[in-house]
Amino acid sequence: MSETEKNRVVVRVPGTSANCGSGFDCIGLAATIYNDLDLTLLEDEKLIIESAGEGAELIPNDEKNIVWKSARLVLERAGFGEKFKGAIIRMENHIPISRGLGSSAAAIVAGLFAANEIINRPFSRNDILRFATEIEGHPDNVAPAIFGGFTVSVVDKGRVQTFSFLPKNKLKLVVAVPDFPLSTRTARQVLPKTVPMKDAIFNISRASMLIAALIKGKDNFLESAFDDALHQPYRKNLVPGMSEVFEAAKNAGALGVALSGAGPCLIAFSSEKKHIENEIATEMVQTFKKNDVQADALILNLDTRGAFVVNG
Amino acid sequence: MSETEKNRVVVRVPGTSANCGSGFDCIGLAATIYNDLDLTLLEDEKLIIESAGEGAELIPNDEKNIVWKSARLVLERAGFGEKFKGAIIRMENHIPISRGLGSSAAAIVAGLFAANEIINRPFSRNDILRFATEIEGHPDNVAPAIFGGFTVSVVDKGRVQTFSFLPKNKLKLVVAVPDFPLSTRTARQVLPKTVPMKDAIFNISRASMLIAALIKGKDNFLESAFDDALHQPYRKNLVPGMSEVFEAAKNAGALGVALSGAGPCLIAFSSEKKHIENEIATEMVQTFKKNDVQADALILNLDTRGAFVVNG
Repeated sequence: MSETEKNRVVVRVPGTSANCGSGFDCIGLAATIYNDLDLTLLEDEKLIIESAGEGAELIPNDEKNIVWKSARLVLERAGFGEKFKGAIIRMENHIPISRGLGSSAAAIVAGLFAANEIINRPFSRNDILRFATEIEGHPDNVAPAIFGGFTVSVVDKGRVQTFSFLPKNKLKLVVAVPDFPLSTRTARQVLPKTVPMKDAIFNISRASMLIAALIKGKDNFLESAFDDALHQPYRKNLVPGMSEVFEAAKNAGALGVALSGAGPCLIAFSSEKKHIENEIATEMVQTFKKNDVQADALILNLDTRGAFVVNG
Repeated sequence: MSETEKNRVVVRVPGTSANCGSGFDCIGLAATIYNDLDLTLLEDEKLIIESAGEGAELIPNDEKNIVWKSARLVLERAGFGEKFKGAIIRMENHIPISRGLGSSAAAIVAGLFAANEIINRPFSRNDILRFATEIEGHPDNVAPAIFGGFTVSVVDKGRVQTFSFLPKNKLKLVVAVPDFPLSTRTARQVLPKTVPMKDAIFNISRASMLIAALIKGKDNFLESAFDDALHQPYRKNLVPGMSEVFEAAKNAGALGVALSGAGPCLIAFSSEKKHIENEIATEMVQTFKKNDVQADALILNLDTRGAFVVNG
């Protein structure tokens, strides 16, 4: 193995959907759509960054690149900051950018995870979670990107704890991806600072039910479990047709629907054994169209393992 | 069997603890402390009501009696309102009254459940849940009293759905029972109508984590899962020493602590295998004492089956 090959790894990180409706700012999931990162750490101060796929033209190819910043953080924390001063970063991205599917979280996790791997894993997945949350500001997407499955995250006095699990329900994820981006900042700005107590209780009860119904595999308890009163109602004007698309997906048999992260993607949950994911996808896309929004549909499964090493 | 014996049943209903901290207004549990109801339905318009045990002197022995009102509701809904116009009601109560352990919910469930049993069970447990919620106004205590274990309840457009489960964690419940009652109405009045969004998220994340950690049996994820920002902070002046007792229980090794329902009882959750429930109880009672509150301690287990027929 050449010196360069030794300091090289390819990692794959899943796209993620935060909130899942009721689980605002704490529940998330990872889906079978991935960004690949081929990272080589260099001792020279040389930085080569190449992107292909989703949003390639938007990705900075200098020190501002988030993959590189994340890799740097791991190197510095592990005392390798002086050893590796450069990198060759090759990305192949399938996660749409700024659509609510965690593309930035995937980039952060990829950088952290790959650098950690090359320096022989001084950090655990929980450490990676801590670093990623530090960079991203919240664990919503980085947690499922790291652990896979569904995740519940609690931030307690700055410390993040994430519980990851695979539901017993066999689910298909239908994601309608509108052709316009939405910045998380914009989507945050429309949220109120205070909310009615009854709306808080609305979400607590449904998020709790969601977790119970998923872990125990009870589709019939999912019926209102994805519903939300705390963020989606305030964001619906940012995604024309949101309520109608939700309605259409439910009418087509979806178990539940939610805004994916801060949007604009909408996600519908469908029982695998019903084989209705294609119909739901069609209904969602057509309903968006009626509201003058062009959208594509993705039919995904739950990712079951989070970030992983493809070779290395 | 005499005519009277045929129309007689003895049922046992557990005491309950609503909220469990983060699960405000939706999570609850049933504990191994019970009220027994010996109900005989009479065709004559005669009402004999006898109470023994907790709060016997406070329980109305006429038509205003909640057990009788609840039994009447079942009889009327089932078309037996004309057949049975009277009853002999004998209660033996162990659940302290107005302390946050669901004594009124137990009385309601006992009346509904016993009457339903005598008329050969026209109603399911879910029907009983609906009736009980109608009478009590919310499912917080009636749900665990009916189903046992831990419960998650969602109220959706007036319809209640309850999911009941037994946690994998082996828990001991330590309840400190202050010597003063607290009305739920008073405890409701101190709550604000609106709350900070961040407090809502605080509870959503912890309630979700609570359910996950209980179903999967992960004590280490319970650490902050019982914590609450939505009701306990506002109610702490109603229970002198609340914060100190919580602190003392946690210092003694409790996995979590919570105000039981609307109080004044405080409940601590302890790992059975640690055998520290007695120490926790002592600490809680002594800390209450330092705050000039006389309290008794109950060491209970989780009730695993909810309301049941003792004979009939």
